Amino acid sequence: MSQPWVPFDDRGLAYGDGVFETVLLHDGQPVLWQQHVERLLEGCQRLMIDPPSPAALSATWQAAPTVGWEVLKIIVTRGSGGRGYAIPDVAAPRLMSRRVPFQPDSSAWSQGVSVRICSLRLARQPRLAGIKHLNRLENVLARQEWQATDYREGLLADNHGLVVEATSMNLFWEQNGCIMTPTLDQCGVEGTLRAALIDAQLVTPAQLAIDEVAAVDRLWLANSVQGVWPVNALWTAEGAPLRRWGAPRHDPLQAVAHPLLGYPATS
Amino acid sequence: MSQPWVPFDDRGLAYGDGVFETVLLHDGQPVLWQQHVERLLEGCQRLMIDPPSPAALSATWQAAPTVGWEVLKIIVTRGSGGRGYAIPDVAAPRLMSRRVPFQPDSSAWSQGVSVRICSLRLARQPRLAGIKHLNRLENVLARQEWQATDYREGLLADNHGLVVEATSMNLFWEQNGCIMTPTLDQCGVEGTLRAALIDAQLVTPAQLAIDEVAAVDRLWLANSVQGVWPVNALWTAEGAPLRRWGAPRHDPLQAVAHPLLGYPATS
Repeated sequence: MSQPWVPFDDRGLAYGDGVFETVLLHDGQPVLWQQHVERLLEGCQRLMIDPPSPAALSATWQAAPTVGWEVLKIIVTRGSGGRGYAIPDVAAPRLMSRRVPFQPDSSAWSQGVSVRICSLRLARQPRLAGIKHLNRLENVLARQEWQATDYREGLLADNHGLVVEATSMNLFWEQNGCIMTPTLDQCGVEGTLRAALIDAQLVTPAQLAIDEVAAVDRLWLANSVQGVWPVNALWTAEGAPLRRWGAPRHDPLQAVAHPLLGYPATS
Repeated sequence: MSQPWVPFDDRGLAYGDGVFETVLLHDGQPVLWQQHVERLLEGCQRLMIDPPSPAALSATWQAAPTVGWEVLKIIVTRGSGGRGYAIPDVAAPRLMSRRVPFQPDSSAWSQGVSVRICSLRLARQPRLAGIKHLNRLENVLARQEWQATDYREGLLADNHGLVVEATSMNLFWEQNGCIMTPTLDQCGVEGTLRAALIDAQLVTPAQLAIDEVAAVDRLWLANSVQGVWPVNALWTAEGAPLRRWGAPRHDPLQAVAHPLLGYPATS
């Protein structure tokens, strides 16, 4: 499949100086598009990158009509130039995108997934928290902690011991009938599905210590591409079992989240 | 000038999944080459990237004979592929390089420079500390804090208030006749000149609170490309003067460092 290329001196390559989005397309139409645009613009503003126009962003998916599910990846970099870390006086940001076919894992929706806790602790950097920037080595290192396919994801805490997210998904938990998700003002990525669920007043940001995650009533991982995965088993980084959760008849998170994505709720 | 390009799915662009080096060339010969190779290999090992061969690395400067100073930039990325943050089963790392002419700033050697303290505080991530990886948004954001050319650099502390480095140089200070440089086990880049000066037993790693930096007997910034810049004035992030230092006849750091780089010591 043809794809765009960037030169050696692009600052996205040189420094991770840019942001990206991963957008679910259903029959050629983007899902949660407004949330993706808002996060991308927020990221550009935080990094002081001149943002692409709404029309240029929409052009990334308006090209060819398709049927079924795809994932659209969009990258915006500050472009080339500058002297070292100093940005160019007049920067010309690059907007690039690519679409690939996608098949959601519906068995994870109904049967749930097994996850482990990562050893790596995320650093706290409020200047970069929340946005989907291109500095993702912590996620890459965390994802290298396991190869076994029986773990579908790894949970990440920050270096104060607070739960943040999974390597590529947001985290949600239920306690006393309330559904909560970690506050992400120190690190982590504010997922677009997470934002939509907070807007829908289904979910409340809160803090959860990694030592208390095994005690919650329910645990889920979710993002705007994969949908909602109930967690059915939690393991330590050393491979010891920490907790199992049953599969209740009704899933209140999927019931709200999956219609937002065009996915069926499994219960 | 022609330069290499990387595809959209290169992990260096996607995640900053790689390392780089910036090497001074003198008449076509690399300066502190062994230190650059060692740091690059250490970076690859920490990120679990299959390292380039010594012959491939040397080929980046063995091509064309030149006269004078150049800067050689080398980038190694993990290459393309993988599923999201998960690395590919068989990765094919990319090695790229580019040479550009360079002129060191000899007036900064003799007259010293004016620097400011940055507002941004570096996050502490021991898994990434020391290596010259491609996740450099903190440096980019810090460098955006000022435009005035009368500040040549900005000092960075970590979020515990300890001095780490400048945005693109290491920091050295003298107190009671000893020359020290910040320990870099939590964040920061271990410069190759810094490594050579520690090996030469001229410099000792130590801790220094940002609140105490104005009280040191001397302060320098240095790296393997620019050489050693004595700091002659220090300013707060808000632009208030903190300290001025005189220009003593003998500079003990330049006296050892500049011969290592092929630069003259100014005293």
